[in-house]
Amino acid sequence: MGTGVATPGDLASCRRELAAALPADALLADPADLRTYECDGLTGFRVQPALVVLPRSTSEVAACVAACHRHRIPFVARGAGTGLSGGALPVADGVVIGLARMRDVLEIDSANARMRVQPGVTNAEISTHAAPLGLYYAPDPSSQVVCTIGGNVAENSGGAHCLKYGFTVNHVLAVTMVTADGTILEFGDDCADRIGPDLLALIVGSEGTLGIVTEVTVRLLPKPAAVRTLVADFAAVAQAADTVSEIIAAGIVPAAVEMMDKLAIAAVEKGVRAGLSTRAEAILIIEVDGFAGQCDEDFAAIREICAAHGATAVHIPADAAERALIWQGRKAAFASMGQISPDYFVQDGVIPRTKLTPVLDRIAEMAREADLAVANVFHAGDGNLHPLVLYDARIPDQAERAEQLSTAIAELCVDAGGSLSGEHGIGTDKACSMPRMFSEIDLAAMDRVRAAFDPDGLCNPGKVLPTPRLCGERPGPYRPHPIETAGLAGRG
Amino acid sequence: MGTGVATPGDLASCRRELAAALPADALLADPADLRTYECDGLTGFRVQPALVVLPRSTSEVAACVAACHRHRIPFVARGAGTGLSGGALPVADGVVIGLARMRDVLEIDSANARMRVQPGVTNAEISTHAAPLGLYYAPDPSSQVVCTIGGNVAENSGGAHCLKYGFTVNHVLAVTMVTADGTILEFGDDCADRIGPDLLALIVGSEGTLGIVTEVTVRLLPKPAAVRTLVADFAAVAQAADTVSEIIAAGIVPAAVEMMDKLAIAAVEKGVRAGLSTRAEAILIIEVDGFAGQCDEDFAAIREICAAHGATAVHIPADAAERALIWQGRKAAFASMGQISPDYFVQDGVIPRTKLTPVLDRIAEMAREADLAVANVFHAGDGNLHPLVLYDARIPDQAERAEQLSTAIAELCVDAGGSLSGEHGIGTDKACSMPRMFSEIDLAAMDRVRAAFDPDGLCNPGKVLPTPRLCGERPGPYRPHPIETAGLAGRG
Repeated sequence: MGTGVATPGDLASCRRELAAALPADALLADPADLRTYECDGLTGFRVQPALVVLPRSTSEVAACVAACHRHRIPFVARGAGTGLSGGALPVADGVVIGLARMRDVLEIDSANARMRVQPGVTNAEISTHAAPLGLYYAPDPSSQVVCTIGGNVAENSGGAHCLKYGFTVNHVLAVTMVTADGTILEFGDDCADRIGPDLLALIVGSEGTLGIVTEVTVRLLPKPAAVRTLVADFAAVAQAADTVSEIIAAGIVPAAVEMMDKLAIAAVEKGVRAGLSTRAEAILIIEVDGFAGQCDEDFAAIREICAAHGATAVHIPADAAERALIWQGRKAAFASMGQISPDYFVQDGVIPRTKLTPVLDRIAEMAREADLAVANVFHAGDGNLHPLVLYDARIPDQAERAEQLSTAIAELCVDAGGSLSGEHGIGTDKACSMPRMFSEIDLAAMDRVRAAFDPDGLCNPGKVLPTPRLCGERPGPYRPHPIETAGLAGRG
Repeated sequence: MGTGVATPGDLASCRRELAAALPADALLADPADLRTYECDGLTGFRVQPALVVLPRSTSEVAACVAACHRHRIPFVARGAGTGLSGGALPVADGVVIGLARMRDVLEIDSANARMRVQPGVTNAEISTHAAPLGLYYAPDPSSQVVCTIGGNVAENSGGAHCLKYGFTVNHVLAVTMVTADGTILEFGDDCADRIGPDLLALIVGSEGTLGIVTEVTVRLLPKPAAVRTLVADFAAVAQAADTVSEIIAAGIVPAAVEMMDKLAIAAVEKGVRAGLSTRAEAILIIEVDGFAGQCDEDFAAIREICAAHGATAVHIPADAAERALIWQGRKAAFASMGQISPDYFVQDGVIPRTKLTPVLDRIAEMAREADLAVANVFHAGDGNLHPLVLYDARIPDQAERAEQLSTAIAELCVDAGGSLSGEHGIGTDKACSMPRMFSEIDLAAMDRVRAAFDPDGLCNPGKVLPTPRLCGERPGPYRPHPIETAGLAGRG
């Protein structure tokens, strides 16, 4: 992409322009203030930016980006900083454009069940505002109380209920986006089909590399008439995994099928006390929702399948409060790991659901070989694993071994016919693993699309796609520049 | 895009290479043979290509495209040629790459409910092959018996049941695509989420401008356990329109809500004899599917809403054969227009569902002003209108007036907050109307993304995006070249 390199003089000029364009309290340059922005949820990487700006409107964001563009200063957008793949990691000597002050609900259209919000509104706030209308916003990442819709759009966030309801891309109807030169684009509309190239679908999940989304219109859904939840205990992980496969094979589409293993349960019970069985080797939290008759029928079938696969107990929460507590336990699983381990890496790979048992067996084997503990808590229904590799950073070399194990687990998922990432994104963390999943030709196509939006490489550079700088100067399997694809050099 | 212009010598060289790369019967150059390829379902435009090639495999397509690319010959992919917006209209002196011989089912994966096929397999054949497994392919354009999945991917095709089930983009899991230089890309996978820029969503609906899709993996759905269908007759179009709005507002998601007006019914009854009431001013065909209990409950609510809005009769088909006949009538509506008019234009606009009545009233008024008849048959549930402007090409100036009226109707839809196209695409037909919906900045972004795949402008040129050549040399509202967007020249 870009060739020009910014100098300190450029940065000073950019800073003057930013100061002129924004209120005084919207520009942070004090090192103590900047420390908050050094990393996101991927805590292993820290980079101090030169400046942080906190705009309040689309036009302020456009002014910030235009100033960066004029002076060739790279910039990174940031929501709540909860992302787990380092998508909001700053660029050294670059600008962080924090969107935390853009928290207005701009429009609630109850007739058409949609809401237009600024990107700093949290995922949970959308449902709170929709609740009086009997509506809610479906995608539910575990961090939903703090993570922002802007971050959800960047990462195409999922959550426990995405098994039935789909990911963020299925619920975003329109966005306003500032591109790398400060231009304001609007994509999406009220229409059933989208015409022309579907840039909205491209923008959702692009991890902040195509521009900065400054307004989001989301679809709201009617709250389901009925919800049924159960927790099934198993004496073996394989029994739980087989149960999941058989539920899906039976044509049932539960709202959620979550699995937790013994170590994950132990952490949650120390942290939240959700009433989960600490004697079980694995539990499934299974939920169905919709029409009451269908829920009852599906629920009965699920109970039979659990029993047929050796469930030692099936527990049905007595009331909404108990159901909420179970979900609170599940959603606090990552945060609870501190109860049993000083440090951990969260992995996020996807495998075909039918391979749950062999892949989980192999992860356990790899953990034994590495002499590390791995806790599993994940979206079993769609094969989206979240192995948590536990370690103690104070013990020499343990962090490094844990990271190696975590990366090996991601690559195991790819080799099993799955994916490097289910919902946490590629970001900084996995850019160098992309050639494991995509050919040089596929990556070059992604790179060209990105350059169509950001020819100078200023917008969240170094994320998602591997670059020699990021992945080491050694000749790797992928060399994105220069792009030269010979006529027939394909894979046909 | 490209600057080099192909010469007759280039074409001759290209032809020699194509002849060497393909079997003898796969290259057509006889003018009589070429005539078949002069137009698609948008019959008002005819262009004779220089050559037609009929490859059988991804590698043959790649060889054809690479030969065109070497000699800077533009090319256009073609499936069954049923598209209604001229997306498969040839380029004069260009090559048509016909995919009709690529009709193999490559893989049926019953465990994961998916099928991988070549692009020339028809939409209906996919469901036929899936039927023994109790599965089907959901998107159902009216032309499904003849139209191909490759064309469906290009146009992001819809159909009557897309109200509940979504469009092609919601059902395509992966594609293999040959890009404009003959490179073979693969996008999509088995994973719940897609990582990196979501090029698959970009490719679906790009109307053949980003490359040629040579393999498609689609998701299959279990056949619904129950289906209930009714036909409601109304004495006024407004009553039928209000019924649609109230059904959706009640939170019911029918599988389909189709509307036909008196003129459309008359044509269908002359053609197919589907048993529809020719005395009604409008009918609704409403279908619900899914779990039997939910169907019954929704169906009862729908009947009440129909009655409350003055339905003069509600007819429930006695058996599957009668239900099939009703759908045959609906799907043959365009083809039946020949029964009542020598010629017609099909329009394809979308409006917010809540504006059905005023927009239909205005269309009737515009028809009276133009002294032309307009029949309406459309997907009422998602506001996707298909006004059919009837005319007789033998009467001087009537074709021109009909085309003007049809374009005015499309622009009325945009002005009502809707879209130029619901499911038929932009193609040749509506490229010049795109500036009515998109700003210069939005169109320039689309143009840059397209150039990322096809920098030389060889792949279905002149379609979708307006170009001075296509839209006349007069200074129009959109000038795509050169692309120069000033820093803050946005719309914020």
